Amino acid sequence: MAKLKHKLRIIPLGGIEEIGKNMTAIEYGNDIIVIDCGSMFPKEDLYGIDLVIPDVTYLEKNIEKVRAFVITHGHEDHIGAIPYIFQKINAPIYCTKLTQALIENKLKEYNMPNKIKINCISAKDVARIGCFAIEFIKTNHSIAGAVALAITTPVGTIVHTGDFKVDYTPVDGDVIDLAAFSRLGEEGVLLLMSDSTNAEREGFTMSESKVGECFEKYFDEGSDHRIIVATFASNIHRIQQIVDCAEKHGRKICFLGRSMENVSKIAADLGELNVNPKSIISPDKAESMPKDKVVIITTGSQGEPMSGLARLATGEHSKLKLKKGDMVIVSASAIPGNERMVYRVINNLYRLGVIVIYEALETVHVSGHACQEELKLILSLTKPKYFMPVHGEYRHLMQHALLAEKIGIESRNIFMPELGKALEIDKKDAKLVSGIPSGMVMVDGLGIGDIGSVVLRDRKVLSQDGLMVVCITLSSSDGCLLTEPDIISRGFIYMKDNEELIKEAKQVVQEIVEDIKISRIHDWSFIKNEIKHELRDFLYAKTKRTPMILPMIIEI
Amino acid sequence: MAKLKHKLRIIPLGGIEEIGKNMTAIEYGNDIIVIDCGSMFPKEDLYGIDLVIPDVTYLEKNIEKVRAFVITHGHEDHIGAIPYIFQKINAPIYCTKLTQALIENKLKEYNMPNKIKINCISAKDVARIGCFAIEFIKTNHSIAGAVALAITTPVGTIVHTGDFKVDYTPVDGDVIDLAAFSRLGEEGVLLLMSDSTNAEREGFTMSESKVGECFEKYFDEGSDHRIIVATFASNIHRIQQIVDCAEKHGRKICFLGRSMENVSKIAADLGELNVNPKSIISPDKAESMPKDKVVIITTGSQGEPMSGLARLATGEHSKLKLKKGDMVIVSASAIPGNERMVYRVINNLYRLGVIVIYEALETVHVSGHACQEELKLILSLTKPKYFMPVHGEYRHLMQHALLAEKIGIESRNIFMPELGKALEIDKKDAKLVSGIPSGMVMVDGLGIGDIGSVVLRDRKVLSQDGLMVVCITLSSSDGCLLTEPDIISRGFIYMKDNEELIKEAKQVVQEIVEDIKISRIHDWSFIKNEIKHELRDFLYAKTKRTPMILPMIIEI
Repeated sequence: MAKLKHKLRIIPLGGIEEIGKNMTAIEYGNDIIVIDCGSMFPKEDLYGIDLVIPDVTYLEKNIEKVRAFVITHGHEDHIGAIPYIFQKINAPIYCTKLTQALIENKLKEYNMPNKIKINCISAKDVARIGCFAIEFIKTNHSIAGAVALAITTPVGTIVHTGDFKVDYTPVDGDVIDLAAFSRLGEEGVLLLMSDSTNAEREGFTMSESKVGECFEKYFDEGSDHRIIVATFASNIHRIQQIVDCAEKHGRKICFLGRSMENVSKIAADLGELNVNPKSIISPDKAESMPKDKVVIITTGSQGEPMSGLARLATGEHSKLKLKKGDMVIVSASAIPGNERMVYRVINNLYRLGVIVIYEALETVHVSGHACQEELKLILSLTKPKYFMPVHGEYRHLMQHALLAEKIGIESRNIFMPELGKALEIDKKDAKLVSGIPSGMVMVDGLGIGDIGSVVLRDRKVLSQDGLMVVCITLSSSDGCLLTEPDIISRGFIYMKDNEELIKEAKQVVQEIVEDIKISRIHDWSFIKNEIKHELRDFLYAKTKRTPMILPMIIEI
Repeated sequence: MAKLKHKLRIIPLGGIEEIGKNMTAIEYGNDIIVIDCGSMFPKEDLYGIDLVIPDVTYLEKNIEKVRAFVITHGHEDHIGAIPYIFQKINAPIYCTKLTQALIENKLKEYNMPNKIKINCISAKDVARIGCFAIEFIKTNHSIAGAVALAITTPVGTIVHTGDFKVDYTPVDGDVIDLAAFSRLGEEGVLLLMSDSTNAEREGFTMSESKVGECFEKYFDEGSDHRIIVATFASNIHRIQQIVDCAEKHGRKICFLGRSMENVSKIAADLGELNVNPKSIISPDKAESMPKDKVVIITTGSQGEPMSGLARLATGEHSKLKLKKGDMVIVSASAIPGNERMVYRVINNLYRLGVIVIYEALETVHVSGHACQEELKLILSLTKPKYFMPVHGEYRHLMQHALLAEKIGIESRNIFMPELGKALEIDKKDAKLVSGIPSGMVMVDGLGIGDIGSVVLRDRKVLSQDGLMVVCITLSSSDGCLLTEPDIISRGFIYMKDNEELIKEAKQVVQEIVEDIKISRIHDWSFIKNEIKHELRDFLYAKTKRTPMILPMIIEI
């Protein structure tokens, strides 16, 4: 083989606590392909931030090399950043048909003219992009149309699993293409990048069809109840199983919630969801149906306050009212951080006299990610030279790395990606290199990346103890106060109940200003600092709180 | 029997989502006894609040009736409100010796002179208080000295389990006194109030000694590692097992973290924790010990940012540094809401090259609360006429109620407490009555209950989009602006990067003021509203953010 001109670089971009999830760039010479383009919902320490997207500085700097985005499946953490990133970087997208439809739906929601070229591919297809050849491999996941990737590069083949599980009895009958993984293993895999979400969990992830058996049981027993099922709109196979149960038991189907209506229609149009159009009824119609003749499939399985289920649980839904004896099945697991919202909804449902079936009580949900035995299966089939666990927090990557060691991969050939690093591989060697701009960019309103640590820190301070604004008006000639200091506070104390404290605070400010030497009356930063420090001490002594203090000086 | 003069009232006080947990009042005629006096940590929607305590308005109104506080055990959610509540209501406390020591330690921390009379009781004791006789019953829980209560009242006997589990192999060898529950059942129980925390979970809660077996395994294997165990300071039996392993394996013991040092000392002084004083070493000493000769027992199992473990994980501990090959056992379950903090610490530990053993991987923790089979056991032994599930969210109470129905308690005799309600029982009947002032009081700095919904709402708004303060100075004679409007913002945008926007905002304000008719120049609320509305629209159009806008007017 000729000597290689370049090194192969694998560059995880984006991510907060989870690494190698939202976006990964693969670079060789003049060609970059980007795997996935996802967003994250901000956690509670990102005050007021709407969305977090990957930092694509590296791609912008190398924009002439970016040949394509390859999207493994249609979940938000893999497609959600497209409306933002594609404002800067436009390259053709390769994905399966449901993923394509979900991307197009997203662009429509953002009112973005669709200038993006999307190449619809199917499993077993091979796309040649720059120096790469990408083979798409059918996998099982909690959304239809998920694929793994086998990327042939001049250095060797990279296998990227995408998000996956091994489901021998999937709802669409189409098992993950283990033969392809096996063949690739025989041919030789340079690097395996594999989903680490469930690397802490022993055994196998249960088949999606287990959930169907549970639905079956409740539909069988449930002739006394109106049935409402809340689940993820994108989990078409879950919805298929509910639809099948409904049709078998002579129940009409009502899709509730914007994304549930949208996605079920998209999936039905594509033939990914088989539902008799005559079975579908509107919420108005559903409300008037006999209880054993209808099932409502709704959003809100994460307890989102504005969702269909949350509004049903508080009796605030405009078209449907839950009644004593209705049965709600929450067919989902709370995403970490959403637990309290989910439980609040369940508590409210119980208060309405509704029967609630949820994950703590029944197998109404299974994960879409592989557990340890499945991870070992993929490791064993592909027999990679190098291994990079991806898609997880560091603890997940670590457990996945330990599994890989157990099945014989040498620890020096296992690389844990961290933000700012890239894996560089040539024919002889692989190593992590540093210095890649990488991480998260915060989206807040129209601003992309304009919120920095100062603004976030201020929001945090304001959220804890509020603020006090102090405005003083000085005579430019002699520095005397022209009026008494004006003070307002918000989020600190209730001003009407604390007139005395405000009066004393004004007194403190007045004394500071009166004590300032004539020589310093134009030194505003000095005056402001004096006010800040004195007032802070005064307020802390009185209340043990430290509001942000904002002095303003008007000179007339 | 003579006709009863009064009704018996059971009044749950306090609680946010969990009901019948922090405090319950039992009232008959002129006597009230209060069970527990706990606090809650605020959840993330209570911006900046330090602590939540029960609303005791009902007790204050009936202060002459309050005979005693009976504390079931020494966890914060059962003793944490004492320093606040006892500023208003002082009555003797009845509790076991460890509970007493923990209360006294708390009062010391709050610099409160101890004017509270504490009666130290033991299991099997009976205290006569007003018209009540209270028998204390040994239970098992994740803290030593936990008791259930059998309260004889003129109407009948109330059994209150406190927090409990059934542990046949407890660390102190002292099994829950099932015979007492059985005897009470034979004698006749009017009302059972029972812990619902784990009512969703099938089967039995594992014995605390299971955790000891796990420690044993890691100490046996661990001669290559320095061992660090993080757990709750109050879980004396857990600590006992670590101490036992350490002494058996010839390791010295270092207690790390203020509460760990305090509580281990208190427990050792009381004889609740058996540890050879010579085994205990300081952190300085621990750092210099050979790795197989020391175990560090630390706080921080909930990932609290200032705790021992969190500082070890970031390498910021002043006395101890973790090294590659050290083994950290996180012997706890993340309390709902703390998951991300705990995982952050675990991720950081892994980044240091430390081996981490935690709940997802091993039985390093068991619950302190009874599962379904244990709950049914207590229901079966006590055979109560009435049942009130307590200590749980509504979903837990509901599952507990369903269990009670299954074992034969009629649903009309099961009462689910809600805040603001009390259960009223006479010889014939029991029913829920309304109108009790009840719920949570927020503690923020020195303020108890002075933070209301307005302040919280402001903090929320400020945390999302920050604020903009607009200060204008008007001439009192003609209403003209004396200077250009002054604007500062915090938590909204970074002002230095947005000078143009600030300039335009000033322009907007200037135009508003200039357009105001002379007749309205003294109508400040009109001017302020104009500024708020126009600026809000302007800023939203420019940024899609809605900071709080605070106009101030100075008239000279």
